[in-house]
Amino acid sequence: MFCVSCVASQECATYVNTFIGTSNFGATFPGPIAPRGMASVSPFNVAGKQNKLEKDSRWLSNPYVYENTFLTGFSQVNLSGVGCPDLGVILVMPTTGEVQTNHLDYGTTYSNEIGKAGYYSNTLDKYNIKTEFTASTRVGVNKFTFPKGKSNILINLGLGLTNEQDAMVQVVSPTEIQGVRSVGSFCYNSPEDAYPVYFVARFSKPATNYGVWKTPDTYQGEEAKWMTYNGKTRIMERNTKMVVGDSIGTYFSYEFDKEETVEVKIGISYVSIENARENLEKETGNKSFDTVYKETFNQWNSLLSRIKVKGGTEDDKINFYTALYHTLIHPNTLNDVNGDYPEIKTGKIGNTKDTRFTVFSLWDTYRNLHQLMSLVYPKQQSNMVKSMLDMYDENGWLPKWELNSTETFTMVGDPASIVITDTYIKGIQDFNVNKAYEAMLKSATTLDNNPLRPGLKNYLNNGYLVVGQRGPVSTTQEYNAADYAIAVLAKELGKTDDYKTFKKRSLSYYKFYDKDFKLLRPRNEDGSFYKPFDPLAGANFEENVGYIEGNAWQYAFMAPHDVKGMIKLYGGGKSFTNQLQKLFDTNQFDMANEPDIAYPYWFNYVKGEAWRSQKIVRELASKYFQNKPAGLPGNDDTGTMSAWLIYAMSGIYPASIGDNVYQITSPVFDEVEIALNSEYYSGKSIKIITKNNSEENKYIQSIKLNNKPLKGYSVTHQQLVNGGVLEIELGKNPIK
Amino acid sequence: MFCVSCVASQECATYVNTFIGTSNFGATFPGPIAPRGMASVSPFNVAGKQNKLEKDSRWLSNPYVYENTFLTGFSQVNLSGVGCPDLGVILVMPTTGEVQTNHLDYGTTYSNEIGKAGYYSNTLDKYNIKTEFTASTRVGVNKFTFPKGKSNILINLGLGLTNEQDAMVQVVSPTEIQGVRSVGSFCYNSPEDAYPVYFVARFSKPATNYGVWKTPDTYQGEEAKWMTYNGKTRIMERNTKMVVGDSIGTYFSYEFDKEETVEVKIGISYVSIENARENLEKETGNKSFDTVYKETFNQWNSLLSRIKVKGGTEDDKINFYTALYHTLIHPNTLNDVNGDYPEIKTGKIGNTKDTRFTVFSLWDTYRNLHQLMSLVYPKQQSNMVKSMLDMYDENGWLPKWELNSTETFTMVGDPASIVITDTYIKGIQDFNVNKAYEAMLKSATTLDNNPLRPGLKNYLNNGYLVVGQRGPVSTTQEYNAADYAIAVLAKELGKTDDYKTFKKRSLSYYKFYDKDFKLLRPRNEDGSFYKPFDPLAGANFEENVGYIEGNAWQYAFMAPHDVKGMIKLYGGGKSFTNQLQKLFDTNQFDMANEPDIAYPYWFNYVKGEAWRSQKIVRELASKYFQNKPAGLPGNDDTGTMSAWLIYAMSGIYPASIGDNVYQITSPVFDEVEIALNSEYYSGKSIKIITKNNSEENKYIQSIKLNNKPLKGYSVTHQQLVNGGVLEIELGKNPIK
Repeated sequence: MFCVSCVASQECATYVNTFIGTSNFGATFPGPIAPRGMASVSPFNVAGKQNKLEKDSRWLSNPYVYENTFLTGFSQVNLSGVGCPDLGVILVMPTTGEVQTNHLDYGTTYSNEIGKAGYYSNTLDKYNIKTEFTASTRVGVNKFTFPKGKSNILINLGLGLTNEQDAMVQVVSPTEIQGVRSVGSFCYNSPEDAYPVYFVARFSKPATNYGVWKTPDTYQGEEAKWMTYNGKTRIMERNTKMVVGDSIGTYFSYEFDKEETVEVKIGISYVSIENARENLEKETGNKSFDTVYKETFNQWNSLLSRIKVKGGTEDDKINFYTALYHTLIHPNTLNDVNGDYPEIKTGKIGNTKDTRFTVFSLWDTYRNLHQLMSLVYPKQQSNMVKSMLDMYDENGWLPKWELNSTETFTMVGDPASIVITDTYIKGIQDFNVNKAYEAMLKSATTLDNNPLRPGLKNYLNNGYLVVGQRGPVSTTQEYNAADYAIAVLAKELGKTDDYKTFKKRSLSYYKFYDKDFKLLRPRNEDGSFYKPFDPLAGANFEENVGYIEGNAWQYAFMAPHDVKGMIKLYGGGKSFTNQLQKLFDTNQFDMANEPDIAYPYWFNYVKGEAWRSQKIVRELASKYFQNKPAGLPGNDDTGTMSAWLIYAMSGIYPASIGDNVYQITSPVFDEVEIALNSEYYSGKSIKIITKNNSEENKYIQSIKLNNKPLKGYSVTHQQLVNGGVLEIELGKNPIK
Repeated sequence: MFCVSCVASQECATYVNTFIGTSNFGATFPGPIAPRGMASVSPFNVAGKQNKLEKDSRWLSNPYVYENTFLTGFSQVNLSGVGCPDLGVILVMPTTGEVQTNHLDYGTTYSNEIGKAGYYSNTLDKYNIKTEFTASTRVGVNKFTFPKGKSNILINLGLGLTNEQDAMVQVVSPTEIQGVRSVGSFCYNSPEDAYPVYFVARFSKPATNYGVWKTPDTYQGEEAKWMTYNGKTRIMERNTKMVVGDSIGTYFSYEFDKEETVEVKIGISYVSIENARENLEKETGNKSFDTVYKETFNQWNSLLSRIKVKGGTEDDKINFYTALYHTLIHPNTLNDVNGDYPEIKTGKIGNTKDTRFTVFSLWDTYRNLHQLMSLVYPKQQSNMVKSMLDMYDENGWLPKWELNSTETFTMVGDPASIVITDTYIKGIQDFNVNKAYEAMLKSATTLDNNPLRPGLKNYLNNGYLVVGQRGPVSTTQEYNAADYAIAVLAKELGKTDDYKTFKKRSLSYYKFYDKDFKLLRPRNEDGSFYKPFDPLAGANFEENVGYIEGNAWQYAFMAPHDVKGMIKLYGGGKSFTNQLQKLFDTNQFDMANEPDIAYPYWFNYVKGEAWRSQKIVRELASKYFQNKPAGLPGNDDTGTMSAWLIYAMSGIYPASIGDNVYQITSPVFDEVEIALNSEYYSGKSIKIITKNNSEENKYIQSIKLNNKPLKGYSVTHQQLVNGGVLEIELGKNPIK
């Protein structure tokens, strides 16, 4: 099914298995998307009690679950790897026979699934319809092969994954439909910012018949006595007027006297219907399905082949390139082909000549994804930072968890500062750093009505947030890390006083340290430790007093900006190592969430203990990341888990903040070559060559950089991007 | 309050009292509309339990009730004098202080009401805001005078009178809003034809702040657990995106440092938002409120002064010109300024160079309103017939109760044929009469899937509909009358066979005659009379076996196409007179509904009994039609009641079908002069001069036509439109 050698064929994109992450709550979808595309198509199989995981029976954040079997359409805008339901709307569904408008009636099982980069296909069992999908950046392309007879293509605007409802639709002609669907309130936050997604659907064959359906609410009271049609679905045949409602859709019907295909291109925009139409025309015009697919495949291939690997198993390559694929989905394109995009908060339509990116899940992605982008796709990372600064211009604040120009305020901390500083010190400096610094200071110093840093007053007065505030320990740790990033940028910009101030602020997490527990423990308003203290409370995402999505163990070592200080705090190398090892030994380490994902690398900082990092990273990578639908440890978190894997398999990891250093562990591949962008970096490529690599030989015996022995287990960004060649010799015995 | 003499001043429009019909279920509204306007503004005071008649507590078909006191806005599209709720949407409301979005919170009592042709004003007590309104054909013009301070103008798209819900709105700029509101399902019929009304609102001053609100439905089930905002109103400040929903609105807010006025022009279209904008710009552009008002007033004045009266009281003149005003509201304009209009059923946008009329309540208006239009405004009547024929082209059927290009199928019968034939024989023949005849034949002869004439098979087999079918007696009578109209047109067109066939068909009501009761009695499928027979069942709109909105007495004499035959059927002049007089003496005559409104004139057909018509018509006119809000006997029925009054006060009435004759009774005025349109009629005007007129002198002593004695109590249309001068001498003694 997959080609043998990426290096030889150059077809790295053939290694993508789009089903990875579609089980075990990975929350990825198997359908096509162009790199950082606005449009995407996912089979939608989360409605209907037939399904194991059903969207209305439980919290569910993805349009597709591998184990589910009952499909009710193909959604044309989707989020990948997120933890809250949103988008998953504009459901296209081909059927045969009489038009049914209730998805529970027209839904079907399916078979013959194929998922590849830029392509998805299946067969709808009930109808014997072959479905195929591809996508350009802003257009989903649907292709249906119908058997002879009466066939229909439905666009259901009632069904969806998003927390919002209501839509408008209008049949423009027998080959075109336009409309709008409300989406938003991601994580049930910021409902006042719910917003529309606009679309234009163009059909390759004119419908023989068409119509709109609408299921109105059931009226109560006096009126209900007279309405014979109360709450009933209406079929509005040949209706070409605007229809608005909570539960509406359109059908296009055909009479085929032989097997026939119909292609439906759906242009998307967050600005207007007119722009959706322009996106459709400019991107896909008269192109065939195959042409669009080929172009998108080539885009994927070109981006994925920026990293070439040798050695490893086929599954290793699949896991690796699928992970890289997943890091190239979000942040994604928000602007239309003409440059228009909805500004955040202002209500205005902005325009950009670059790409305006959206979907910044920064609490996740500040930890490794943006670092990976800076290394492999620095131009993209530069545009992402510019997008963040444009958001500051528009909204007055840097983003926290931005989604289609709404600030969802999901999660805690002030992660934008960390991303910007890291980008800057990596040498990507073609953005307005002064504005960036001003923006960072604003959220770090505004005491009142500060949406990014609630609790800042306590933080500045005590050094920490207190019990009663949201996740006081975690949030303080996040503020510390952000403050350190500000300190680093201050230093870069020659602002020595700011450097000192923020450096000092960044270490206040010390105050949580309880040496009896050797853990960070919440404090009350009066300064006393919170009682009773249960270090295990908060595992498995349970809500708890001190921590966000984690417990005291999972947050114990989250000081990526101060690893050496943290080791000292924990009683020095040996004591620290013991405590950290205990986290792993007692199964408190959670691979499925972000707070502790850098911890496996902390052993590298203690002399003689780096073998533990080598061992654990390899174990985690092979245990949690596999070539199967459940092959992600949990939510991909818009590529953060995938970025972790790419680094882990390559043998380097940007574990710390502000020092521009990669921790080295044992690579999975014999050779990893990362092409460098000459606009930003002087080297042509980075090579990581591994010798004596085997499953057994997981321990580093020696490291050479550019043919010279390397002391320790880290390498700087600068050393690598100058064209560094790392040679890592492995063996079966740990070096202690 | 009103000018003294219409004739002297020529300002007939000053006699219009727009409050007549706003009580006693007249269902008119007091706000401004241009003649046959698409847009109109009505104070909306039927929401909120404070009101005596509340739209959600009972059947209510009008946006305004005179006795109500709690106002929640000003609706920008309205129906006048109809019996089912519809339109009454796009509610504009000025307020002061903080923005409130719930009409029960922001509603207020009001005072200082003024209602005139083309103008309405009041003061909102809670806010001390002076409101003023006028309208051009397709644009409502709202003017608000605010006190100093914070002020708001709301457009509430959730509230309304229509049976439909759901809307879309978008703030285009701080001076413009565009949107769409679902309306339709008039009388809870044809819900699949619910349709949008599009609008663009333009504000004379830019809003300081603005936003959209949305109250979503309350979610049930799992999701409700997570939605802190479940079912709650959201304020979406400075939102410029499309917002769709069931309960949405916009607010524009201002900060005034002194008393200020804001004008809001709202362009309407049933085709598109773009057309609504063009309507607004072309009709009102930069015109001031006063300019628009003056233009609309002049239009009214020009139309109303086609009939000039002398004599009578001030109240008589007010009643007369207000009635004429009410006959010039519906049918109204459907097409946009550029000629576009939504075709009926096809889904296409048609285009016309004339006026495309809509709102054909033909079961009502076939009886007298179209006859009045033919006489006084023949060009309009010609265009109405052309509109009806265009509907036939589009929909395959002539209209029955057409509303904004939806066929609501309200009421029974096939009244379009009667209207078309009457128009033709009155000499208005500039339409395609062959197509009209074809259309009339189609509904008269199509046995299956005939939406206009259900039950036609029984009708043709037996001569009548049978018990079990809808209102079998009434419906048969309606079919008879329509068939007679077809016969008359057939004769005109030289189709002798058709004439005979349809003439014969038109008399089948004889079969219902039960000589024991001297009434028309329903028959069963087997031909037997229906038992038990209660001649009183069906009064006051109660549902019953034989009749539509009436009882056996009210339908007993409904053979306007065969008055002489009916007299014979009822046993000759004396017997007939006795039975007819009994109807009045036993209070079974219902002035408030259409079936019996011609009956007061039937005495004219019996030698020596015409004095009864003279007496009864005068009594009814003065008893039921008065210069007060309750001054209509019930629903105005899109002007049918008003048309009755105009004729009654003028002393002529087109009581019969197909013979082009007016029955003469005692006029109220000393002189009525009807200007004639030279395009259609040879005379310059018709004069009806009354001598010895007084309340006491209600009986006709003699009649002269063009200075020659007239035999009998009728005059032909031709005699009048050649420039006839009728001189009617009255006295206190009846001539028997």
